[in-house]
Amino acid sequence: MEISQATVLDVLDLCGVAVFAASGAVLAIRRKFDVVGLLTLAFVAALGGGVLRDLLLAREVPVAFDDPSYAIVAFITGLAVVPTRNLIERVWRPVLVLDAAGLGLFAVTGATLAAEQGLAAIPAVMVGVVTATGGGVIRDVLAGEAPQVFQQDSVLYVIPAALGASAIVIAHGLGGLNLGVSIFAALAVTIIRVAALHFGWHAPLPHRI
Amino acid sequence: MEISQATVLDVLDLCGVAVFAASGAVLAIRRKFDVVGLLTLAFVAALGGGVLRDLLLAREVPVAFDDPSYAIVAFITGLAVVPTRNLIERVWRPVLVLDAAGLGLFAVTGATLAAEQGLAAIPAVMVGVVTATGGGVIRDVLAGEAPQVFQQDSVLYVIPAALGASAIVIAHGLGGLNLGVSIFAALAVTIIRVAALHFGWHAPLPHRI
Amino acid sequence: MEISQATVLDVLDLCGVAVFAASGAVLAIRRKFDVVGLLTLAFVAALGGGVLRDLLLAREVPVAFDDPSYAIVAFITGLAVVPTRNLIERVWRPVLVLDAAGLGLFAVTGATLAAEQGLAAIPAVMVGVVTATGGGVIRDVLAGEAPQVFQQDSVLYVIPAALGASAIVIAHGLGGLNLGVSIFAALAVTIIRVAALHFGWHAPLPHRI
Repeated sequence: MEISQATVLDVLDLCGVAVFAASGAVLAIRRKFDVVGLLTLAFVAALGGGVLRDLLLAREVPVAFDDPSYAIVAFITGLAVVPTRNLIERVWRPVLVLDAAGLGLFAVTGATLAAEQGLAAIPAVMVGVVTATGGGVIRDVLAGEAPQVFQQDSVLYVIPAALGASAIVIAHGLGGLNLGVSIFAALAVTIIRVAALHFGWHAPLPHRI
Repeated sequence: MEISQATVLDVLDLCGVAVFAASGAVLAIRRKFDVVGLLTLAFVAALGGGVLRDLLLAREVPVAFDDPSYAIVAFITGLAVVPTRNLIERVWRPVLVLDAAGLGLFAVTGATLAAEQGLAAIPAVMVGVVTATGGGVIRDVLAGEAPQVFQQDSVLYVIPAALGASAIVIAHGLGGLNLGVSIFAALAVTIIRVAALHFGWHAPLPHRI
Repeated sequence: MEISQATVLDVLDLCGVAVFAASGAVLAIRRKFDVVGLLTLAFVAALGGGVLRDLLLAREVPVAFDDPSYAIVAFITGLAVVPTRNLIERVWRPVLVLDAAGLGLFAVTGATLAAEQGLAAIPAVMVGVVTATGGGVIRDVLAGEAPQVFQQDSVLYVIPAALGASAIVIAHGLGGLNLGVSIFAALAVTIIRVAALHFGWHAPLPHRI
């Protein structure tokens, strides 16, 4: 039996949803939000980037509102965080790794959809980046905070996503985009993001140039 | 003569627009915004939720930009608040009741449109909630504040909207959605919201579980 | 050889993109953002208003994601600001004039697209205003600041844009919209905006009425 690439992308997409939903729920609990705030932050962190992607690609109803399994996975993951949060807080490094994995998965699925729809290279990479980082930005704006994506060690968040999305767009342009490339690109994003956190990498600072 | 359900929904929609526009204008005056800020907050508070709804449902040009009567009602209501604001400030409880009525009306019209377009139950309820609460979120973000919807006594804002939208989606699923059900659901949202304010109800707090 | 109005509008549009991208990059450097933040603020300041316009007009993929030349102009302009920023800081008045010119260009192109798509007068003017001011609002929200558009001397930002957009919509309604009118309207917006800054004009304050 052959598993189609579309099916695998769907499964990876749901994994990314769960990971980002958990990160949204952890944030909501830390900020002492109530259960509505927890479900909302879980949903927007997990699916906000995909909704932006679908709006930018002018697709029909965004997949997060078309296929209820996405919202269900986000809500259940968010609620599952409540009784397990002490465990999660104690092992925060794995959470950051999961967050990095979500970044990689969404950059790959976003760039794949954009490239397959025929977007030019630079816009397709940008759609991948928006898919991967948009949920976090909406999460922070709804929580009334400055988006983390531009600050401190969150800085090296956009660059791994852009590299992974670029790999997808180049592979698509060369006619060599397949499941192996997708998984490799998502893994590479995850590893670069984790290394950036571990080694404290920074992007160049224009005001020092 | 029979009045169609669509006509009644249109009238209820315009009532919700006026109510939310007034709440946006009151906020703008309290924060000493100028007349441009007043008109903008009136417009986004009144029509931001509907614009988000129309974007999520992938409809054509959002109704707030397609039918000028919505913007006109929002702007006139916003300006009408200026000379009457002392009266409005003195009777702030009625303003909260009107705001609760707007919440109910928009939850009902949003969920109705989503269900009639064939969305699954959970996404249709969420579209109702976004329609009802999205204007307030955009209003607060534009005013540079943390969205009220997750804070303090505003917490029980999403839950009544979700209950009302659920009633609409269930009635639609059972084939029993009609004008009476719509008005009943909007009234129920209004009453639950007002009761939540009056009795100081809270949603469960995950960090205390 | 005749140059079509569409071609001229495209060129004006790219000039507006460059001007707004430069203002976003200057802001990013002042706030000590890294190069990713600089490119992001340059992009959203330059193209955020146009993306909102295309979403509201229910066009296909927003032009900023369809035609890569927009993103390329925004990114190159943003990077070009880095070595020249001391010059730019010293001559900040020209920057404000360029910003005012971008405001005029985007108000004109946004209102033209909306009117030609058949929107009613008030919504068409509003689309012009959103096109002209939306990028700045998204830029400020992403930078974690209250949108400048409602504050202090930024107050008279919406009004010139609305006047310019109104001139376009009226000319379109009278069948007299042509290149001369477009340039005149964009220039008028620029001059009113610069005069408002120079003379410290304010819009009426409702809380003092």
